[in-house]
Amino acid sequence: MTTEITQKGKLAKRASYTMNTLTTAQKNEALQAIAKQLVVDADTILAQNALDITAAEAQQLPASTIDRMLLTHDRIQAMADAIELLIDLADPVGEVLEDFTKDNGLHVQKVRVPLGVVGMIYESRPNVTIDAATLCLKTGNAVILRGSSSAKHSNMALVASIHTALATTDCPVDAVQLIEDTSREAAAELFHLTEYLDVLIPRGGAALINLVVREASVPVLETGAGNCHIFIDASANVDMTKSIVLNAKTQRPSVCNAIESLLIERSWFATHGVALFEALAQANVTIIGDDAVQAAFPATTAATDDDWGHEYLDLKLSVKVIDDVFEAITHINTYGTNHSEAILTEDAANAQTFLRNVDAAAVYHNASTRFTDGFEYGYGAEIGISTQKLHARGPMGLPALTSTKYIGIGNGQIRG
Amino acid sequence: MTTEITQKGKLAKRASYTMNTLTTAQKNEALQAIAKQLVVDADTILAQNALDITAAEAQQLPASTIDRMLLTHDRIQAMADAIELLIDLADPVGEVLEDFTKDNGLHVQKVRVPLGVVGMIYESRPNVTIDAATLCLKTGNAVILRGSSSAKHSNMALVASIHTALATTDCPVDAVQLIEDTSREAAAELFHLTEYLDVLIPRGGAALINLVVREASVPVLETGAGNCHIFIDASANVDMTKSIVLNAKTQRPSVCNAIESLLIERSWFATHGVALFEALAQANVTIIGDDAVQAAFPATTAATDDDWGHEYLDLKLSVKVIDDVFEAITHINTYGTNHSEAILTEDAANAQTFLRNVDAAAVYHNASTRFTDGFEYGYGAEIGISTQKLHARGPMGLPALTSTKYIGIGNGQIRG
Repeated sequence: MTTEITQKGKLAKRASYTMNTLTTAQKNEALQAIAKQLVVDADTILAQNALDITAAEAQQLPASTIDRMLLTHDRIQAMADAIELLIDLADPVGEVLEDFTKDNGLHVQKVRVPLGVVGMIYESRPNVTIDAATLCLKTGNAVILRGSSSAKHSNMALVASIHTALATTDCPVDAVQLIEDTSREAAAELFHLTEYLDVLIPRGGAALINLVVREASVPVLETGAGNCHIFIDASANVDMTKSIVLNAKTQRPSVCNAIESLLIERSWFATHGVALFEALAQANVTIIGDDAVQAAFPATTAATDDDWGHEYLDLKLSVKVIDDVFEAITHINTYGTNHSEAILTEDAANAQTFLRNVDAAAVYHNASTRFTDGFEYGYGAEIGISTQKLHARGPMGLPALTSTKYIGIGNGQIRG
Repeated sequence: MTTEITQKGKLAKRASYTMNTLTTAQKNEALQAIAKQLVVDADTILAQNALDITAAEAQQLPASTIDRMLLTHDRIQAMADAIELLIDLADPVGEVLEDFTKDNGLHVQKVRVPLGVVGMIYESRPNVTIDAATLCLKTGNAVILRGSSSAKHSNMALVASIHTALATTDCPVDAVQLIEDTSREAAAELFHLTEYLDVLIPRGGAALINLVVREASVPVLETGAGNCHIFIDASANVDMTKSIVLNAKTQRPSVCNAIESLLIERSWFATHGVALFEALAQANVTIIGDDAVQAAFPATTAATDDDWGHEYLDLKLSVKVIDDVFEAITHINTYGTNHSEAILTEDAANAQTFLRNVDAAAVYHNASTRFTDGFEYGYGAEIGISTQKLHARGPMGLPALTSTKYIGIGNGQIRG
């Protein structure tokens, strides 16, 4: 164990016991202070961000990666504005979920409590630093942040700004810890920091998430990887299909709830397939298809078996022609990542079969998969989209950052 | 991977898709058939159990272990009776937890769904086989059971009886799988069976639970280990204290919610300590104390630092004299297992401080820790007591065996 990780773990754990006692007003004052300080510190933060950007350019990282890392005055203001919205959200801590009194008079309540110490391990975007820290503070948690080495200067400047703000509030400065060692070894230590970490949340690409799920002994909230499908059934409305498929693929191809794969029922394909592919091609989407698709639409790239499980996060779409809703369900349950899946059909029975049997966090009938999102669902904040089945599934709002506790009040009750 | 585990994993996964479509009535019919079949098969089951008992006696296993393994006609009838009670419980699957319609008309419901395939890994008691299988079936899950080698014949006979029963119902026989290979290697394979297992629940001693938590990449529901404390504050009522401490220690010392350690405020100890120890000694409890306790009560065994973290599950009690509620909280958060913790006090402020700051699934004021139990809480069934913070904490009833799914019904909605 490095000194840094155990020390920061210990400090975060101790701070979590103070966080647990803060009122909603105290936590909101701390958030308000952070929102103000970020704007005050903007020039310093941008200067540090420039170091990361220069290094990224020197390493010739992809333009899209550099854009995600880039901070501007507007982006810092957007972080501050998001904190203002978070302040207005209801505090889940203290909510009474069950309340019963036994015949012997023992009164038991099940109440929401903070998780304790949340570990966040994430990739290039520095705004996750502010997001994660403020969502954790709002829910009475301490947080240990571990960003990527490429955003190290930005993250240090952002956390320095948070610390400046917290020092003026009742919220302990130690409640937000940034791990400065961005080596793989340091990440591996976090995976096993069960003494101090209550949960570990990875945010980033499939490789990072799979690594954390495979290696960590700390409980993990698996987020994000989305190999999402749309199944076009025989009776799918043609105009609706075109509109939804284009939206789900092209509106923002780099996000987890965009579709990566299209399954088309054979008769619908024969009649309407080419027109749909032409519309997709016009939107610069590359079609990666099976033999049937290649035969009908020569601009198609040949799909290999690997394509069915691939998350492109790009203007690429794998397409397979299939027989019916049952083949769609089997294909999705085999190759999907349990994120967001849609059926387009006018057949109510097929819709029900699909919605019931596809194993995913969110399933849709005649709507775009792009709706799977904490803000779209009205949660006002999102710590990630869970693709696992325990604790939270789908978009995770503030309650996902809480646990529960049974509190029993008696006057001498013993068990008979 | 052994053929057995991947084969049974695959069969269970496939069966889980059928389980997911069954109505409550269909599941209850299957449970009814199992309850009947167990009684029909009782002689066969007892004959197989006798083989395990004979082997256990030959290996000179402890009498308490052999008693936990022993089946009788009464115990089989008790299993059948428990199934009848389970049939009467509400089915959580299908419950609508959220329901909202967006401005664009997209209607979204968050509904409870089965977890899928539940893995249970457990120690000697064969009744867990029936418990786990029936709770999983009630909640629409398939289950993979992995009991101990010492109860192998009993478990095989019990699962054979379940299979005979299920063959007459709509519930697939493959929904209940027993792993017959009871080697450590087979257990290790289960830990990483992420392709087929949605959750792994260990039930048994601390060594088993720690092994699963440390090794498994399948999400784990940590259950059971209970190093529980009572803190006797300065103002604790003397008679109530004696009654609660005796109950929590002696009513059933082998269970996880019995106390293992007593923390006594210094002034209360000076006045009432010896009388309490005499009452405990009369109930055959061995006191394992710090220096102050040894000085006051010569029959005390000297405590080492290891004792503060030890779960005796026996008529032994570690005792430490401390200064106040803050020392109690720090001690419990350091050495406890986040299970059940109690404060005995007439001081409301100290009670609040304790209840808020002790990090445990259940905290009590002036009541015995023995109440932490699914049946005591009125849940009617219990798959275990969770000592982790994700998904479920404390006694886990049927909802702990479910996940959720968002179902969105639209008529062409796309994201703007």
